[in-house]
Amino acid sequence: MMPELRQDMTTKEWVVFAKERARRPEDFKRAAQQDLLLPHADSCPFCPGNEAMTISEVYRQPSTHELHNADWGVRVVPNLFPALINRGGLARISEGTLFHRLDGVGQHEVVIETPRHNRFVHDMTHDEVVAIIDAYRARFRVLRKDSRFKVILIFKNHGRAAGTSLEHPHSQIIATPVVPAYIRTKYEIATSYFDDTERCIYCDVVHEEIRLQRRVVLLTDAFVAFHPFASRAPFETWIAPLKHRSSFGQITDTEAADFAHVLFVVLKKMRKSLGNPDFNYVIHTAPLADEDKSYYLWHMQIMPRLLTPAGFELGSGMSINTALPEETAEFMRNAHVS
Amino acid sequence: MMPELRQDMTTKEWVVFAKERARRPEDFKRAAQQDLLLPHADSCPFCPGNEAMTISEVYRQPSTHELHNADWGVRVVPNLFPALINRGGLARISEGTLFHRLDGVGQHEVVIETPRHNRFVHDMTHDEVVAIIDAYRARFRVLRKDSRFKVILIFKNHGRAAGTSLEHPHSQIIATPVVPAYIRTKYEIATSYFDDTERCIYCDVVHEEIRLQRRVVLLTDAFVAFHPFASRAPFETWIAPLKHRSSFGQITDTEAADFAHVLFVVLKKMRKSLGNPDFNYVIHTAPLADEDKSYYLWHMQIMPRLLTPAGFELGSGMSINTALPEETAEFMRNAHVS
Repeated sequence: MMPELRQDMTTKEWVVFAKERARRPEDFKRAAQQDLLLPHADSCPFCPGNEAMTISEVYRQPSTHELHNADWGVRVVPNLFPALINRGGLARISEGTLFHRLDGVGQHEVVIETPRHNRFVHDMTHDEVVAIIDAYRARFRVLRKDSRFKVILIFKNHGRAAGTSLEHPHSQIIATPVVPAYIRTKYEIATSYFDDTERCIYCDVVHEEIRLQRRVVLLTDAFVAFHPFASRAPFETWIAPLKHRSSFGQITDTEAADFAHVLFVVLKKMRKSLGNPDFNYVIHTAPLADEDKSYYLWHMQIMPRLLTPAGFELGSGMSINTALPEETAEFMRNAHVS
Repeated sequence: MMPELRQDMTTKEWVVFAKERARRPEDFKRAAQQDLLLPHADSCPFCPGNEAMTISEVYRQPSTHELHNADWGVRVVPNLFPALINRGGLARISEGTLFHRLDGVGQHEVVIETPRHNRFVHDMTHDEVVAIIDAYRARFRVLRKDSRFKVILIFKNHGRAAGTSLEHPHSQIIATPVVPAYIRTKYEIATSYFDDTERCIYCDVVHEEIRLQRRVVLLTDAFVAFHPFASRAPFETWIAPLKHRSSFGQITDTEAADFAHVLFVVLKKMRKSLGNPDFNYVIHTAPLADEDKSYYLWHMQIMPRLLTPAGFELGSGMSINTALPEETAEFMRNAHVS
């Protein structure tokens, strides 16, 4: 069968759909493993009773679930091994003309999503998921006030292939002192599209996906979840708001509740479809200096780590995908969850 | 210790050097595993006797080593599960304005580097390594004549974390019908630098690294191996020619022999320093339409897969490195190999 290249118009990058290597959506499933975890682990720094192991707490929500043996539901604390540190300024030091360096000024926080060591989003009550989204938004709104920070990334690493070693359900927030070139490029593509059309490219993609239906997994009043046309990996899922908002920080209470519902359903469908896949998710949002412009749409990208990027991907920036998003989206739609 | 950001001027991307997570160069070593492999595997499609499993051979070199129980030294064959196929044209099909697709026209070949199942570059004689480079060059020069192909990528995946499942020493060649956006961006940065300075940015980087010495691993008459200033991963190594050449296809016989020597020494030093690390290497070369221009310098990037990119890397395009190239380069310089 002839392979196919598809272009992601938001990045201009091409993806190879290698049909000679294609697998059916159901072939990606693996046996779930995390059920072996207990609700509490004595040595876990994120479990109740060990709060002293994570000092300088910056955020706390009261418990939202009667089963929790803790007086908190969500905590946000500084990362003990931070990639960036909230200290110092933005002076650049140049070693000749070719080598530029900068102090690693920023913030790196951990969102402890629940007191329970083995309770993941797909098992939570609605209120518990909302509490996580509330924590994201609260910290985003605090961090965005620091003028040294250019971009705030909220992300989750689930499982070893997704780069985590800590089992306890958690996500992370990093504020960076530069706009990464990758985000700058995406933003410039969106800006150029807006200059041409006076429309947001992401909104156009979202509305076209909704019109075509084929790649949509879930549609609610305020959000759509879909497998993008040029998915870089099997079961890559985007969750995007229907109403234009450049920045995640602009999400309203009503939207946050709906987003929590969509995230819950998508992760539950993913678990039903794939077993317990390792995955990352990232909230993509406009650079802080550009939050007020209409060029960008914040959205979440969920990336199951089912394939290993190799030399071709490293050298070209292109991905090789072995499943079609039309097929995986249908498979996810049909994975009924309560 | 304060973390640091460094910018790779050839991509404009930033790398975080997370000093709170820093490890000493010697801490990355793991126990070698591939010594368990035998010289021949009956079921391996690349082993002598199984040549019929890989049909339509496109290139063959005679044996360069008396121990080989085969009448060939290097073979190049079509990939049995190709990402791209040499059939059809370049017509783009658009689904609305946002979704562009293209037939997966291209070529995907496997370079079987040796008849022996357990013989890797760091164990080879000089002539055997030269034979591999000769095969790369010969196939590059054939493929570049097909006007449908825009970029030729030569790369190697070594080990499971680097995306391979076949143990037998091999590398791959993929010709693509588009210039990937990532390569386009790198090329535009190099072009812009040339417009400003009339110099090649890669040549400037190479000469500055040689002048500074600190990150150089090996310097010969025709090549330098170094750990770049903004290394994205521990022990990332670049091998670049000292004489300006945009395209790998322009490499001379003398240069090919020297390149084979440098590749051999670097991989042997890497093995001594890191055990048997999973790694990728990729030959970066100008798009085929731009081979005659002076903007770009072909070079090889070797990337040991010691860390797992996670949500931050996926969302930002930035990398988090936990070792300084000055320290890893010194460690590699001191890893004496015969």
